[in-house]
Amino acid sequence: MSKQVIDQLKNKLIVSCQAEGDSPFNSPEGVTMFAKAAVMGGAAGIRSEGIDKTKMILKNVNVPVIGLIKSKFDDGFVRITGRYKDVEDLLNIGVHIIAIDGTFRNRENLSGPEFINKIKSEFGCIVMADISNLDEALECEKAGADLISTTLNGYTPETLSDKTKSPNYDLVKLLVEKISSPIIAEGRINSPEAAAKMIEIGAYSVVVGTAITRPQIITSWYVEAIKSIK
Amino acid sequence: MSKQVIDQLKNKLIVSCQAEGDSPFNSPEGVTMFAKAAVMGGAAGIRSEGIDKTKMILKNVNVPVIGLIKSKFDDGFVRITGRYKDVEDLLNIGVHIIAIDGTFRNRENLSGPEFINKIKSEFGCIVMADISNLDEALECEKAGADLISTTLNGYTPETLSDKTKSPNYDLVKLLVEKISSPIIAEGRINSPEAAAKMIEIGAYSVVVGTAITRPQIITSWYVEAIKSIK
Repeated sequence: MSKQVIDQLKNKLIVSCQAEGDSPFNSPEGVTMFAKAAVMGGAAGIRSEGIDKTKMILKNVNVPVIGLIKSKFDDGFVRITGRYKDVEDLLNIGVHIIAIDGTFRNRENLSGPEFINKIKSEFGCIVMADISNLDEALECEKAGADLISTTLNGYTPETLSDKTKSPNYDLVKLLVEKISSPIIAEGRINSPEAAAKMIEIGAYSVVVGTAITRPQIITSWYVEAIKSIK
Repeated sequence: MSKQVIDQLKNKLIVSCQAEGDSPFNSPEGVTMFAKAAVMGGAAGIRSEGIDKTKMILKNVNVPVIGLIKSKFDDGFVRITGRYKDVEDLLNIGVHIIAIDGTFRNRENLSGPEFINKIKSEFGCIVMADISNLDEALECEKAGADLISTTLNGYTPETLSDKTKSPNYDLVKLLVEKISSPIIAEGRINSPEAAAKMIEIGAYSVVVGTAITRPQIITSWYVEAIKSIK
């Protein structure tokens, strides 16, 4: 079962369908429309945040769904599925894969790898570790993570300088070289060419979010480009 | 009033928010979410198809709305606002600009330019002529069209060979040179760079649709790029 789900994502596109704050799409209905459209367009998997939204997406698509719950911790930074209860909630609604913050930052007195180890031993569910650098990836793999995703590169205090306009091809190359688990490329992949390049350099799957499912931000890219001329 | 509406679009982005067929967004609510997101992202105008959808968009955004009604004629090709009644219906809901097919193809026994001439004299509304080539553009300008848009280039029998993967910069350059009315660049503008280039070569505004508001097609571009590698 676990192998079958992971196999379905090989060399494929995963579309992240998230909406927050004042986005007009910030509802289970809004993100589900995107998930349906993505699957119609050929996406092999969906990444989704929040219980109500993920529940509705699960009912409406027939591809593996990677679920997560974002919450802001006391240090002001967000953790991805940073609480034991988040994992229970996501498993209860039937997600196929759980994305968990794999950084060394604390949550419920455990580092990411320690938390992943606990979740793997207790539930045996498929875990995608969202990491920001190689050290975290190595520890998460040892802890039993099934997939390693570059989601958090550029979004932790230590990797903020990696948050450029480009996706981090170098990190993906490094992970592919050093780690035998599937590497999922995620973060700032905003063109079909960039997605293809990630697969070419060895990524197992590519996650695209903003460039497909955040029309407000896509619009602003066009507006900025035009402003730069006039 | 008319000048003020047109002024608002100068050197700006217009986002086309349309959905048809089995698109999950094919409802007034679906396209209105996109229109709201586009305006939040900085769009200066919205282009919208259909009475119910356009009506809801008009209620939810505070920028000029270009309305149109698509219908398939007997020759199998679509006309954009090809019927007198379509114009009346769009004016009744309060669109700021009406997009009208400006090709020479017949509709209600009139060519595009003849139809535009009739509409301009009867209603005095702002008309955007959707054309496919220079000859149509010249005739539509004479007929009184306020704005000329390249929407139909690549979509009429005579211009099918122009339907490449790239936007038609040459046609926009030619129109800017030969026509004094504002030229609106529309069609296959799928990157911020292409949009900026259109403004650079003299387009008055740029319309982007698919690349912002059709997540199913955007997804398929990524899927195809990945397939081309593996």
